[in-house]
Parts: sequence; C-alpha cells; structure tokens
Amino acid sequence: MINNLCIIGVGLIGGSLSLALKSAGQVNQVTGLGRSLENLKMAKQLGVIDQYETDYGKAISQADMVFVAVPIGAMSEVFKKIAPHLSENTIITDGGSAKQTVIDAAIEALGDKVKQFIPGHPIAGTEKSGAGAAFESLYHKRRVILTPLVENSNEDIIKVRTMWENAGAEVDEMDASHHDLILAGTSHLPHVLAFALVGCLNKVDDVDEIFKYAAGGFRDFSRIASSDPVMWRDICINNSEAILTMMDNYQKDIDHIKSAIKNSDADKLLEFFNKAKTTRDKFCM
Amino acid sequence: MINNLCIIGVGLIGGSLSLALKSAGQVNQVTGLGRSLENLKMAKQLGVIDQYETDYGKAISQADMVFVAVPIGAMSEVFKKIAPHLSENTIITDGGSAKQTVIDAAIEALGDKVKQFIPGHPIAGTEKSGAGAAFESLYHKRRVILTPLVENSNEDIIKVRTMWENAGAEVDEMDASHHDLILAGTSHLPHVLAFALVGCLNKVDDVDEIFKYAAGGFRDFSRIASSDPVMWRDICINNSEAILTMMDNYQKDIDHIKSAIKNSDADKLLEFFNKAKTTRDKFCM
Repeated sequence: MINNLCIIGVGLIGGSLSLALKSAGQVNQVTGLGRSLENLKMAKQLGVIDQYETDYGKAISQADMVFVAVPIGAMSEVFKKIAPHLSENTIITDGGSAKQTVIDAAIEALGDKVKQFIPGHPIAGTEKSGAGAAFESLYHKRRVILTPLVENSNEDIIKVRTMWENAGAEVDEMDASHHDLILAGTSHLPHVLAFALVGCLNKVDDVDEIFKYAAGGFRDFSRIASSDPVMWRDICINNSEAILTMMDNYQKDIDHIKSAIKNSDADKLLEFFNKAKTTRDKFCM
Repeated sequence: MINNLCIIGVGLIGGSLSLALKSAGQVNQVTGLGRSLENLKMAKQLGVIDQYETDYGKAISQADMVFVAVPIGAMSEVFKKIAPHLSENTIITDGGSAKQTVIDAAIEALGDKVKQFIPGHPIAGTEKSGAGAAFESLYHKRRVILTPLVENSNEDIIKVRTMWENAGAEVDEMDASHHDLILAGTSHLPHVLAFALVGCLNKVDDVDEIFKYAAGGFRDFSRIASSDPVMWRDICINNSEAILTMMDNYQKDIDHIKSAIKNSDADKLLEFFNKAKTTRDKFCM
C-alpha cells in the first residue's frame, strides 16, 4: 500500500495508474504535479487525483512513491526539480517509452540518489492524451518492463513491481538497451510508419477525396498517427539509434516487395505475404 | 428486386452481399459458384446462399445478376467461363480492388458482351476470409465505387447501383484509373506496409519476445497483415503502377523523418507529426 503517490504529468499514463491503484485500494492519497494547471484542475474534478501541487518541494517531500509520466524530452528537467527535495525513503519510477536516455538524465540530475530511481515502462496506451483520457483498466493484463540499475535495492524494485501488479499489469525486467531495441520494433517503428503514411497521403492533390474512400483497414492502421506528436518527437530523438536500425531493416523488406511488384513476381509476393500473415495470426490471436 | 443472383466466389465479399440483400428482401434466390465445394457447402449450411452449382452453364444462364468476387488474379479465367453462357439480359459486376486490369480481362473474355459488365469495388472488408466470415452489415454505410465503361447502358448501371444501395452502401462513380490511384494510397499501400512490418519483425532473433511486448497500437497497425495473401498478391500485381508510385511518395516521407531523426531535428519531427495527427483527426473522427 502506497501512502502518498506523487504523479508528475497527469495524462493518460499517469492518470490511469492513479485510477487503477485507487480502485484496487492500494494508495491512500494521490498528488498531481504538472505544467498545466488547467489539466490538474480537471484531473482533480474527474477524481483522477486527490489534490494537486505546483510546488515541487511540497509535493516530493511528502511522497513515498513518485511516478514521472511526462514526455521523455521533459524528464531531465523534472529530475533536476525533484533532486533537491528527495528524501531517502522516496522511490522514483517513470513511464518513459525509451529507457537509456532517461537513465542517463536521471544519473546526471540525481547523482547518488539515482539508486532510488527504478526505470520502468508500462506498455499500454491509446492514441488519446490528457487526464480526461485516463481510465482505470488501462494496465489490466498489460506488460510493464522494469530496467533496474545496479544501484537499485531489491526492496525498492519489489515496491515498484508490486505497484504495477496492483494496477493489474504483468511485470518483467530486462536491460535498458534490450528494451529500447524491442520497443523500437514493436512500437516506435509502427508509429513512425503511420505518421509517414498519413503525411504522404496528405500531399495528394485531392486530399478530401482520398480520405473519403479510406476503409476500416486504413483507420486501424493509421490510428496511432493520432498519438501525441510531442511524445513521439521525444521518443524518436531519445531512441534514435534503435529506431534507425529498425527503419533500415524495414527498408530492406519494402525494397524486397517493391522489386517483386516491379517484376510481377507473384510467387515471391505470395511467399512474403503468407509468412507475414502466419506470423501475425500466431502472435496476435 | 433481383430474381436470381449468382455469386462467384462465396467469401467475405460475395457472401456478405448475399446476406445483405436477403435481409433487405431484395433478392429471390442466391446461387453460389466457386472452386471449393467445401466452402460452398458451408455457405449453404450457414444460409449465406440458397443453393450452389459447380456448372457454369446452369448457374449463369438462369442468373439476372452475376457478382464476381474472386481474387483479381482469377477474374480473367472466370470471365472466360462465364462468356459462353451469358444471355443478353444478364448483368455482371465484380468486387475487385483494382479496376483497370479487371476491365482489360473482361474486354478480352467477353468481347461485345462487355457492355453487360459494370465494374465495381465495395470498399469494405475485414482481415478475415471465406463464407464463414460473411456478415449482413458489412456494406452498411460503406462506399462502393463503380467505374462504368462507355459501353454500359444507364439502365444496367442503375441496376448495379441499386443493388449496392439495397445492401446499405453509398455508391459513387469514377474513372478506373482514378480509382486505382486512390485505392493504392488508402488501401493497397497500407496493406503492403503492414505485411512488410510483420515480415521485418519476424526476422529478429528472438521473435517470440518481440511480439510478447507488442501493444494495442501494434495490433491495430498490423491487423491488415492478417488479410488473405492471395488477394493481396493479386492486387499488387494488378495495380502495380499506382502502388509503386505511392510507395515512392511514401519513401520520400520516410527519408524525411529518417534524416530528422539522424540530425536530432526535433522541430522538423514535431512539425511532421503534428501535421499527420491533425489530418488523421480531421478525416477519421
């Protein structure tokens, strides 16, 4: 049971953790902190948080758990604001979709206190953002990856793990760099591809007409292009190496299909599509 | 009201038209025709069709409307089998996702009788296939594009239009080449991209692990990679020019994003993602 949970960035990710823990009776009090007073007020009105603070000192010093759920690009600044107010018994964790750069920022800002920081990433979300998008079952049966530091104590890792399990999630642990490569493939690359597709169609002469004839497949495929642009800019900048590697791999497959289409190589196309369908059906049933 | 509708290829597309027209009371009798006797038997058992035939002569000669809903690569052969049995008052239409090559195949097989062929494309579907996947509301409020030939009579065009309206669809008309370009962008390109993504991830060393951490965004994005490989092979071969054009356009946007990631150009990334999100939100609300 967490006595005081401080959520920095009360959006879809932060707000949903609060709602899940409240619903499970696993938190006494949730304090929200963030740049937008308007969003914090709404979060309180909606019951997503119990109270909000604009002052880091007050909010951090009374917290036993701090969850940083801001876009990755803002993490460094947030860690610097947290550092002076961090008591020894407070644990920090985060929800950043790339882990290595967040860890680097934490080490720089927190110094020795980085041992209190357990890096994490709940693999869940929708294309919506803001406190109004939060809902209590977001993490139900979802995976959360923790990428603990050698400096972390087992006890602290278990506390963060337990928090996520109480929110309904299944928790795994792995290296930050391994996390970053896997997520580049299954999440970051698809988002980049979806943004690029919508961007590409947007340049067609009669853009209204093109979207008029877009069917369900297109809607599904492009849904993630409605995601928060700031969040995705930050992920691209902060996991650039792994994303570029995945984009290069992807390019090879696109070139393979392109040359098969150019050469009317029906067998090659069928083989490629069959393999992809078999894989997708196997893993996403 | 159609007296006898003959559906060649009783899968998701053909079967759903039958169910929609039966439910609307707009067809007396539906005869199924196709390569797989097993599928035809199931279609009859499920009430998707009233009867099935294996003989083209019998099935076509008694039909007043023939709907060809086979993969595009099989259309030419089907038209050749239809031709000798086609009486003057029978209308043919199809459901092919690319129109120009289907028209070429119809002209070659039907000769003068091509005037009885009204090319069409219902823009609807799911990633499922076969008679068991058919459902009566598939075309409800979906677009159907007809690409009539100069040889077609207005009367026949209206009959096909009315059939689709009775199935719940909204019908538009345009040039075959314009249709092929639009669909290359909103449907064919996304499918190719989704197949390529799954194919690319499938090559990663620990493929089980990569899919274990795939979240909802990935599932949505890759759903269309579960579509029928034969259908998509045929579409790629039969709309190659427009698809290759769209792939080249897309490549430019991917290169643009790639260079922005490489250069850590946060402003350029944000601008691109913002534009894409605005477009997607505008057209897919």
